[in-house]
Amino acid sequence: MKGSKDNTNSGGRIVALCGGVGGAKLALGLARVLGEDLTVIVNTGDDFEHLGLHISPDIDTVLYTLSGLANRELGWGRRDESWNFMKVLQDLGSETWFQLGDRDLALHVERTRQLKAGNLLTRITGAVAARFGISAQILPVSDDPVRTTVIAEGRPLPFQRYFVEQRCAPVVERIMFDGVAEARPTAQVAAALRDPKLRAVVICPSNPFLSIDPILAVPGMRGLIEAAAVPVIAVSPIIAGKAVKGPTDKIMAELRVPATSQAIVKHYGGLLDGLVVDEADGGDAAALPVESLVTPTLMKTEEDRDRVARAVLDLAARLSARSLAEAGSE
Amino acid sequence: MKGSKDNTNSGGRIVALCGGVGGAKLALGLARVLGEDLTVIVNTGDDFEHLGLHISPDIDTVLYTLSGLANRELGWGRRDESWNFMKVLQDLGSETWFQLGDRDLALHVERTRQLKAGNLLTRITGAVAARFGISAQILPVSDDPVRTTVIAEGRPLPFQRYFVEQRCAPVVERIMFDGVAEARPTAQVAAALRDPKLRAVVICPSNPFLSIDPILAVPGMRGLIEAAAVPVIAVSPIIAGKAVKGPTDKIMAELRVPATSQAIVKHYGGLLDGLVVDEADGGDAAALPVESLVTPTLMKTEEDRDRVARAVLDLAARLSARSLAEAGSE
Repeated sequence: MKGSKDNTNSGGRIVALCGGVGGAKLALGLARVLGEDLTVIVNTGDDFEHLGLHISPDIDTVLYTLSGLANRELGWGRRDESWNFMKVLQDLGSETWFQLGDRDLALHVERTRQLKAGNLLTRITGAVAARFGISAQILPVSDDPVRTTVIAEGRPLPFQRYFVEQRCAPVVERIMFDGVAEARPTAQVAAALRDPKLRAVVICPSNPFLSIDPILAVPGMRGLIEAAAVPVIAVSPIIAGKAVKGPTDKIMAELRVPATSQAIVKHYGGLLDGLVVDEADGGDAAALPVESLVTPTLMKTEEDRDRVARAVLDLAARLSARSLAEAGSE
Repeated sequence: MKGSKDNTNSGGRIVALCGGVGGAKLALGLARVLGEDLTVIVNTGDDFEHLGLHISPDIDTVLYTLSGLANRELGWGRRDESWNFMKVLQDLGSETWFQLGDRDLALHVERTRQLKAGNLLTRITGAVAARFGISAQILPVSDDPVRTTVIAEGRPLPFQRYFVEQRCAPVVERIMFDGVAEARPTAQVAAALRDPKLRAVVICPSNPFLSIDPILAVPGMRGLIEAAAVPVIAVSPIIAGKAVKGPTDKIMAELRVPATSQAIVKHYGGLLDGLVVDEADGGDAAALPVESLVTPTLMKTEEDRDRVARAVLDLAARLSARSLAEAGSE
């Protein structure tokens, strides 16, 4: 033992699995602590074609959040945004249910152009991250299309139609990931999870059903995570018996999943070694079948994000130390 | 004879052939005098694919000019424009040689979407014109692709690369219209030229080589115009021995065509019955092999546009009257 060693920045890679807004907050905290020692594997199930453009909402949220370009008032899109494109689109009688800011639009047009030219989403995302001055590695889980479809009130709804156009109003019965059986993790995703310096996998407090499941559903992903043989830690999206983000709460109720830490651990089906639990739900923590760490998990400020990130890394260090001790005692 | 009949709005359709900025000024004057009795057949040789978008520069100039949305300071694009899309496109390291305003962009995105959905350029253009409150009929000459290519300094340049990116700097040797042999005038273009109420065809003072030639090169167009048996009148783009628009002047010099009214009549190869000539070139007018009308043709103000439009209609009426008189005396 090295005594007072600071476990939060003791070197080694962290791989975080992340969806949109909620998860990106933790990803930002991790990025501030870890810099280039962070790989963020991002959900692509929300991706869709709109007005002929390829839009990757979760990747964009991560890119904008980690580069400081995110619009914090809106909770989505870019800051200092203008909306003249949308105004004229409305004048033209076109589809306006999905808001596209003038600045945001450049990313969709350029990505679409590059995809058509044969570039892969992974390379395009990496180039944009570099342009935006992001040190962390941002990776789509797959370059193959995975498209989340919500079965709601008996009919299939493409995710953005459900989420944005219908504002999550229809009652969810089932969630499908079209194309996922044929999708594969990218070589970059596999390399990050096989990095000998990997020290933990973190599941961000994104919607488990809509943001994390499509990542884990890509054949090979669970195997890569398990084979990494490092602690797998989730930050629970539950605070005081409710999901922080309204839609997650509503969907969990509709899918008859209780909004508890227990249910989150159960949902990830044996993948987790640890769970970061909000202090409001600390009473449940002792009964969990995994190691836990209790801390306030609501992330409103930059300091909140850093603190939760450090809590995750503390828990990872604790689990690693225990694992080493167990190996030593065998 | 009906004595003091005003020939400029005596009913009947006018078909105008038009390119971009210069021609659209006269088209606006004609539209103000004629309203829905005007059909503008627009060059599509300038159309191109850029950033995955289908852009129709001349159609857009006509749409923006006739709807009052044109940016008169810039001389192209929309008024009240913002440029945030371009700023981010530059941050992303993408192609920025062709400026696309945030408002303007909506038209390109929506048109591209509709073309991909199988709609024809003619229908899309008509729908936008209606949305923009334009009474005149705006028609692309063809729904088949015609693409102007400039052979300059031994190599082919797509038109917008020559015109915008290289600012017409390379010396033009030859101009080609790719795809024109397979293109056909649309049914709407044919119907306008076969309208029993047609009273004249007007060739706007656009660049004869780059804006009008691609229209006339569409197989069937010359035949339709000749078969209409109405006066064909051009407004000369020459003022005081120079083309009003710099590039036209430069190209005429490079193609060794003198910048004279004579050369304009000769260029249109027997198609013209009349030419509206600027007062600065009035000395040449008497020697022309076609009827002429001398008037100031520089169009800076709304009143200029109306005045030149009325001059064209006056000349058309004079030619029609003469033609009737000749028919009567046979």
